[in-house]
Amino acid sequence: MSQRRILTLLSDFGLSDVYVGVMKGVIFAVNADLSLVDLTHQIPPQNIAVARFALMTAFPYFAEGTVHVAVVDPGVGGTRRAIALAVGADSANPAGFLVGPDNGLLSGVFCHYPVISAVELTNQRYWRTPEPSRTFHGRDIFATVGAHLASGVPLHALGQAIAPETLIQLELPALQVEAFDAITTRITGCIQASDHFGNLMTNIPASQVLNRNWVVVTNGITIPASQTYSDRPSGELTALIGSHGWVEVAINGGSARAKLNLEWGDQIQVFIAGDR
Amino acid sequence: MSQRRILTLLSDFGLSDVYVGVMKGVIFAVNADLSLVDLTHQIPPQNIAVARFALMTAFPYFAEGTVHVAVVDPGVGGTRRAIALAVGADSANPAGFLVGPDNGLLSGVFCHYPVISAVELTNQRYWRTPEPSRTFHGRDIFATVGAHLASGVPLHALGQAIAPETLIQLELPALQVEAFDAITTRITGCIQASDHFGNLMTNIPASQVLNRNWVVVTNGITIPASQTYSDRPSGELTALIGSHGWVEVAINGGSARAKLNLEWGDQIQVFIAGDR
Amino acid sequence: MSQRRILTLLSDFGLSDVYVGVMKGVIFAVNADLSLVDLTHQIPPQNIAVARFALMTAFPYFAEGTVHVAVVDPGVGGTRRAIALAVGADSANPAGFLVGPDNGLLSGVFCHYPVISAVELTNQRYWRTPEPSRTFHGRDIFATVGAHLASGVPLHALGQAIAPETLIQLELPALQVEAFDAITTRITGCIQASDHFGNLMTNIPASQVLNRNWVVVTNGITIPASQTYSDRPSGELTALIGSHGWVEVAINGGSARAKLNLEWGDQIQVFIAGDR
Repeated sequence: MSQRRILTLLSDFGLSDVYVGVMKGVIFAVNADLSLVDLTHQIPPQNIAVARFALMTAFPYFAEGTVHVAVVDPGVGGTRRAIALAVGADSANPAGFLVGPDNGLLSGVFCHYPVISAVELTNQRYWRTPEPSRTFHGRDIFATVGAHLASGVPLHALGQAIAPETLIQLELPALQVEAFDAITTRITGCIQASDHFGNLMTNIPASQVLNRNWVVVTNGITIPASQTYSDRPSGELTALIGSHGWVEVAINGGSARAKLNLEWGDQIQVFIAGDR
Repeated sequence: MSQRRILTLLSDFGLSDVYVGVMKGVIFAVNADLSLVDLTHQIPPQNIAVARFALMTAFPYFAEGTVHVAVVDPGVGGTRRAIALAVGADSANPAGFLVGPDNGLLSGVFCHYPVISAVELTNQRYWRTPEPSRTFHGRDIFATVGAHLASGVPLHALGQAIAPETLIQLELPALQVEAFDAITTRITGCIQASDHFGNLMTNIPASQVLNRNWVVVTNGITIPASQTYSDRPSGELTALIGSHGWVEVAINGGSARAKLNLEWGDQIQVFIAGDR
Repeated sequence: MSQRRILTLLSDFGLSDVYVGVMKGVIFAVNADLSLVDLTHQIPPQNIAVARFALMTAFPYFAEGTVHVAVVDPGVGGTRRAIALAVGADSANPAGFLVGPDNGLLSGVFCHYPVISAVELTNQRYWRTPEPSRTFHGRDIFATVGAHLASGVPLHALGQAIAPETLIQLELPALQVEAFDAITTRITGCIQASDHFGNLMTNIPASQVLNRNWVVVTNGITIPASQTYSDRPSGELTALIGSHGWVEVAINGGSARAKLNLEWGDQIQVFIAGDR
């Protein structure tokens, strides 16, 4: 098939400096025929948790074999490993490839997609230079390695194989699902992300509430569930299944984050009535 | 001709979340050979009027046949229609195609370019999934439909034909042009947009003032006309014909919006001296 | 070689308006097969010094022959020249091409890469229109000229040759390097840029301090040198060689710009101990 290969970029570099443009220069110097997609470069500086969620939620929407280069890297130049992974259920046709630091950033994807193989990026042949900057591996290692991977270099050529169970994971507290009373189930979860509209994404998956009667409770406020933003009057809180597949809290025409003053990791509960 | 087809994106999704990246993933999964252009994703949340102006001003600069996917969609998941249009003077070679919600967002273009044909996006074959998210039609309907359209699927295949006169229009108040005194014409219009420099665009077209003696009056301030920003001393208000073809108010080296405190829809007047 | 040609864009247009999208529409109308890279569009409005640094630091990372279109243009519509340059050591294979206003913006590149040839953009055949807007040469001249250049039009066809020594340069104060005492060298330089992390880039090149014992002194504060951000405790100032090749001041996990309250042009000193 003649279609061009896709490479995505995610970082906390922002868009006011030339860091992202420089990474693209380095990528196109390897292969100017790649199709590049920016996932986002506005991850709050050094916030691995937000970056992990962003990559995890974007990953499923990309074509099989897409290469994702993700760089939120407070430990750059230190001892953290630089890695690349192939993930997916079919080892002959990986769902995708991940390139970045081994600091938990990639773990939102590989906790949903099994790791097919993993390498540490020790083969300097695929770096931009054998003497990379101590502060910008995004340019000198990750960008070029990603470009070579998207251009057909096999994963195992990029460096030493590593055991998937040694990869750093960043975990949210596990959901607590329990009987609250004879007819009610209570699920305790937390906020794992918010977006620029101020919508709050919990870590409670849609499957828990689908076709049930449910409400969200937080800070003593009970928030009714609805199908979509416009089902509720303007300015009123609503709970719904968000487009990423998580229970979400929103305000039609406003910011739930501002109204509720909730942040990453803050606790939130769902109550489900009826047959369990 | 072997040139790649162009697809533009406009939204209020911002750049801090992965929504835009996900739309591109979905588009490239249909066809990775398209050339994508971001018009802007920083439309103020749910502001259809600003989005309408942005799309209207950008449209004329794109090659014939470009597909524009625009998503500012407060009614998503409700009863508003999802539509696609071919527009232009030559029905055999449309000037461009528009894909988005039927809420007035597209009306800035089709009030200048006649609608050749219009469809409601009822053919689920060109959606990403027959069960689209209730909150993200940008990903599940508009992106894939736009990608198929840019890849050669004919407009009529996308769904049921609809009558152009049923399309929702968002209109500014009509210009008032009147004799002010024996030698002066007064045009009353309004602000229809501003840009990040703080320049204010009115809805008064260049043709009204071209080669005339004219001034802008607002809040009792008279603002002289000049040819370009640098014709006036730094810090002083100037009126000019902006690059989009509208009468514009600016400050050389400053923000006219901040200085005059004018917003979308606020009234502004042009006085033209001499022969009518 | 069949690889696509690369064209970069840099401006102060921001991302909230459609100006950048419109430039890309105009470029793709000339040649939709170009690979476009945004360096940044968030240069502070009309700040030529910041733009000059951004272009200078990004240039070396792009493939030979890349075309860079840079538009920070407070004098648009006035008397400043519109120019294009080929630069590099090998006149048969230019390192790259620059297109933009002759106002110092391009001078950060051509003070490091010799000018091979320079033209004023007088040939209207390569403009979008013979009657360009007085306020948006980015769209009507620079974008189309850049697209033609990246598509194989030779530089000399774009207009009249001009003498490289007539090009406008924007210069920082020269470094002062002097003996401070019997064993210490003092270098006086200045801040030439900062990034969105708040890291401060000086105009003192890495070569001055490499493998030496050195500290930075500013406002009476002495800042020790280290190898990388994570070598210092969180929240403490550190001096290091940044990824662009300049002495840089940073805080691990914070903003040195906010802490030190330094701006473009502010003075900073490096003290080097030991053998000169």
